Amino acid sequence: MAGTDRTQSLILGGPAFVLARPQLGENIGSAARAMLNFGLSDLRLVEPRQGWPNEKAIASSSGAEAVTDGARVYGSTADAIADLQFVYAASARPRDMAKTVLTAEEGAKRLRAHVAKGEAAGVLFGPERTGLHNDELAISDAVIAIPANPGFASLNLAHAVLLIGYEWFRHGDQPSSRGPVRRRGRHSGKASSKEVMDMFLHLESELDAAGFFWPNEKAQRMTRNIRNMFQRASLSEQDVRTLRGIIKALAEGSPKRKRT
Amino acid sequence: MAGTDRTQSLILGGPAFVLARPQLGENIGSAARAMLNFGLSDLRLVEPRQGWPNEKAIASSSGAEAVTDGARVYGSTADAIADLQFVYAASARPRDMAKTVLTAEEGAKRLRAHVAKGEAAGVLFGPERTGLHNDELAISDAVIAIPANPGFASLNLAHAVLLIGYEWFRHGDQPSSRGPVRRRGRHSGKASSKEVMDMFLHLESELDAAGFFWPNEKAQRMTRNIRNMFQRASLSEQDVRTLRGIIKALAEGSPKRKRT
Repeated sequence: MAGTDRTQSLILGGPAFVLARPQLGENIGSAARAMLNFGLSDLRLVEPRQGWPNEKAIASSSGAEAVTDGARVYGSTADAIADLQFVYAASARPRDMAKTVLTAEEGAKRLRAHVAKGEAAGVLFGPERTGLHNDELAISDAVIAIPANPGFASLNLAHAVLLIGYEWFRHGDQPSSRGPVRRRGRHSGKASSKEVMDMFLHLESELDAAGFFWPNEKAQRMTRNIRNMFQRASLSEQDVRTLRGIIKALAEGSPKRKRT
Repeated sequence: MAGTDRTQSLILGGPAFVLARPQLGENIGSAARAMLNFGLSDLRLVEPRQGWPNEKAIASSSGAEAVTDGARVYGSTADAIADLQFVYAASARPRDMAKTVLTAEEGAKRLRAHVAKGEAAGVLFGPERTGLHNDELAISDAVIAIPANPGFASLNLAHAVLLIGYEWFRHGDQPSSRGPVRRRGRHSGKASSKEVMDMFLHLESELDAAGFFWPNEKAQRMTRNIRNMFQRASLSEQDVRTLRGIIKALAEGSPKRKRT
């Protein structure tokens, strides 16, 4: 299927995400879903407490088999990262350790640069309650610390995975992440100025007949304001037809409204 | 406590996050945690399926009482957004509706700009499986579509909340909240959702009385298209007053037009 192909092409060559001693299957599944949302598939688990495979993980992964089916389990963090050339630790800023600290965005850019050069890179995530050991921080090349509310900074494990995956995807070459796309596709049927102007004249003549432009010296300003308001809506041809139908219906009324 | 104070100062004045018809308490709690992680506290729930308060939500919120304690429940989306002047719909790119589509980053910058100007803004999230109704998209000012793997694009509800919250927080210290704001200065008096909705109901009742909605089975679609067209104009309070004047004038006509 085309959809499957696209997915497969997106998940080639991304960084490994290593979950060290995750406690809850739900979080693993939710992390797997988040990874695939952003085109990542190399999931590695170090001593998952509830074992692997895990039913709750599968349930919360929402069908992200491209990640869960290929997940690998390791007996130690060192084993899990053995083949990686660059390891980033997702963690709060370490207190007692001189360590480069990156934002998620900076970390994602580094990951992109590694992958572009064919370097094997990964991100290491600690267990839900305790986070990574200092030993694990020590063997990482840098820390990725996600900026958050200092009064409530602890992120859910899958949420941390999601945010780094999001930044990874966002800084790729995918057209969808390439930057400001404003109102794309909106204007296929954009009305011409003439169509819009004809509609204005229709509206204004009906309003004039209804005694709307009063006092008279304000008519010009009122007209300008009304035109400006509609202009902002960037009307399509269909919109103009709809508006003309509205003007006609309101001005003429239904037979039963003509209070004869 | 210092921590509490800092939290309180961070959560002042952020946008509202409105969850429409959320199905699972866990997701509400996880969304609440994600909001507080990024300094947001105004959580609004429209008809939460499992009721509110909800035990599972509290459990998965990891102590984000600053959000869960203050969450408000509404009977309809219109009620939940009534006081908001700018509503952004978190959604996939809409297919059949002309709508401004923003990335999460662009959306967050807009939210910062609104809040900086004292404008009431919020983000609307749909239910887990089905997403927002087209009617809800129609009454939103723009869509925030999070770029993701086209082969596996469906994000968990709390994950969508997290990503927009993250972008909100990330752009806090930057001049982005001061930066390019299209239509700057125009919206000092942006109409609230309730004012706009009341105008829609006025227009639609007059159109209905005039026999405009024919054939009947198309009425819903026609209504949605009309609402969407006006929503794009980003109406001010004055615009709404003008439109109501127009509707009234056209529907009633002047004395001389009443062909009695």
